Amino acid sequence: MVFSIRMSRIKESGIRAVQKRIVGKSDIISFAAGLPDPNLYPMEDLRKATEEMFDKEGQKAFSYGLTKGYEPLIQLLVKRMIEKEGVKDCTRDNICILSGSQQGLGLAGLMFIDEGDVVITENPSYLGAINAFRPYGAEFAGVDTDDDGIVIEDLEKVLKENPRAKLLYVIPNFQNPTGKAWTLERRKRFMEVVSKYDVVVLEDNPYGEIRFRNEPLPDLISLDKKAQVVYLGSLSKVLSPGMRIAWVCASPEVAKMVEALKETNDLQSPELTQMVATYYMNMFDMEAHIKHIQQTYKKRADLMVKMIEEHFPKEIKFTRPEGGMFLWLELPKELDSDKILDDAVEAGVAYIPGESFFAHEGIKNTIRMNFTLVTEEQIEKGIKILGDVFKKYI
Amino acid sequence: MVFSIRMSRIKESGIRAVQKRIVGKSDIISFAAGLPDPNLYPMEDLRKATEEMFDKEGQKAFSYGLTKGYEPLIQLLVKRMIEKEGVKDCTRDNICILSGSQQGLGLAGLMFIDEGDVVITENPSYLGAINAFRPYGAEFAGVDTDDDGIVIEDLEKVLKENPRAKLLYVIPNFQNPTGKAWTLERRKRFMEVVSKYDVVVLEDNPYGEIRFRNEPLPDLISLDKKAQVVYLGSLSKVLSPGMRIAWVCASPEVAKMVEALKETNDLQSPELTQMVATYYMNMFDMEAHIKHIQQTYKKRADLMVKMIEEHFPKEIKFTRPEGGMFLWLELPKELDSDKILDDAVEAGVAYIPGESFFAHEGIKNTIRMNFTLVTEEQIEKGIKILGDVFKKYI
Repeated sequence: MVFSIRMSRIKESGIRAVQKRIVGKSDIISFAAGLPDPNLYPMEDLRKATEEMFDKEGQKAFSYGLTKGYEPLIQLLVKRMIEKEGVKDCTRDNICILSGSQQGLGLAGLMFIDEGDVVITENPSYLGAINAFRPYGAEFAGVDTDDDGIVIEDLEKVLKENPRAKLLYVIPNFQNPTGKAWTLERRKRFMEVVSKYDVVVLEDNPYGEIRFRNEPLPDLISLDKKAQVVYLGSLSKVLSPGMRIAWVCASPEVAKMVEALKETNDLQSPELTQMVATYYMNMFDMEAHIKHIQQTYKKRADLMVKMIEEHFPKEIKFTRPEGGMFLWLELPKELDSDKILDDAVEAGVAYIPGESFFAHEGIKNTIRMNFTLVTEEQIEKGIKILGDVFKKYI
Repeated sequence: MVFSIRMSRIKESGIRAVQKRIVGKSDIISFAAGLPDPNLYPMEDLRKATEEMFDKEGQKAFSYGLTKGYEPLIQLLVKRMIEKEGVKDCTRDNICILSGSQQGLGLAGLMFIDEGDVVITENPSYLGAINAFRPYGAEFAGVDTDDDGIVIEDLEKVLKENPRAKLLYVIPNFQNPTGKAWTLERRKRFMEVVSKYDVVVLEDNPYGEIRFRNEPLPDLISLDKKAQVVYLGSLSKVLSPGMRIAWVCASPEVAKMVEALKETNDLQSPELTQMVATYYMNMFDMEAHIKHIQQTYKKRADLMVKMIEEHFPKEIKFTRPEGGMFLWLELPKELDSDKILDDAVEAGVAYIPGESFFAHEGIKNTIRMNFTLVTEEQIEKGIKILGDVFKKYI
């Protein structure tokens, strides 16, 4: 059986490889997850929303619907883009509902990347995006980031060096894996720079609403004057990841292309899940729910920072998250976090070595730590254990 | 904004174009649909299954799950492939759950087709498949069909003429658009012929279970000795299309590739829909439900045949369906069904002109008629009207 050339480019996810290493160790404290805490799903409200949906929609919830999405949900998302994300002129023509942001990444690859085109990402960046673009023959170029976000001087350099730059993939809010958020200044300068190039900006914003410190900053799409930004929003981190509901917000031209591609790729997202989400959002106070998520994650993030300060060797640098789900560690340069993971797992703690988040290999001294799927007790215990493991190396 | 070359190959579906022509005409009798009858969804049972699922699964229904699919559903589908489809050695390694068969078509394109590869289809064939393969640069070759199914002599000729034949896409049961089913003899000879070539057979079987006359015939995959067949099954026509649940059954190598591709394309199908389907299948008698669907559609198909015999000019040929959702008309060669549609819509009836189901253009005298989304009264009235329209041309 002969596969397409594309298939030779598929790589196993580094996250999965770690998950295989901790399978069967049930008492392990895992900072390796990338998941929201299921205990925060509004289960009673979701159940009531589902019941109401059965009463009101009946057969419609199990029928075919439109590729673009369930109209009342589209309307709610338009309102959200206007009121929360500052996209003042958003209409239904800008939106297409997706089966999770991951579908937006896959379709962006299909839509923009020809063999040899260059995808620019922050370095490091979200693995699932890099893997989604890989099959289409993308080359990758990384732009450095610092504590304020993407480094503008490096961005300019990389754009100049890559005339075939086609797609610029960024996560300005609480990036996966580093948890960092760009400053306002960086957002503005970023948009100034990219507006000089014919490059598509793919702004992935699954974590933006999980800000638990300081005021929200404008999305790139709200600063966009050239319809250059393709924005991905998601309900996965604020309501439920298993419903697989996300959306693209972009120029009508792009939204229409996404719709045409979605039609050939999965016809439509399920009516059932779209309707449950819609009924939930109409019947209950999702903003209050999001506030509760923010407060819970803030406690965990703050505790993790405090424990790291107390128990990690001072040589280890770490981020202090203002939101999102992750914290990022930088060990001294000579250390290999993938090798240390064996010792950590032996001691009862798991994390994700950072190397696989870099488009090009070789950076071995970083670690992604998740603070949303662990209890405060687990954070206290796990960070202490991890501190002891690191002390053997430093 | 510069799109990929792929995007220049996207075409609007001919079905959508027809739907636009009948928008706003609410009293039209439409034989243009491709949908199961929503009145046949087992709504009460689906509701009970959903309630039970909330009780038993809670948060899990709203969490991330595995890309491959929800394990209890995989097990039910394995059992189905063994008992109903005759794939005796099927295990979970052969299965990956999909978001509708359409996802299987899109992923097959991604997995097998390089620029310039040839996809062989029955001529005519399902539009949604042709459109799913198009972006990857596929060339198309059609094989003739007659009342017994695919024409073996033509298949041999087309395979010989196309050394870059990569994928052979077929719907042996009640094909969309013609409604025809292949005979046993044709199935066996087809597998003999293709086994001599290094070509992947993509067997799409959404309608197989809606057989309302004669005994079921073996699927190609059950006759496959070389692991050459990639089979797509679906719950869309027997339970609910809006849940978007389908599956691939293939060699473990292919099933794994599908899983890897699905991971980058949408991560996973929703847990919620997979669980509702699983609870329904475990709690209720789906076979009895399918029997009820068969009997209802049989009545409508038989009535449509009877009315056509009475009211259409004898020059019009038509199929007598043994199952599925469609009946196929062949008008005299000089007629253009797309032009006649204007008159038909004017008179209050719609159908799908057959031309867009052919990979290459030019066959203008065919029509797809749906009999599942119309009542018996509508069939009686609509066929009479259509007969009068046709009589003006013949």
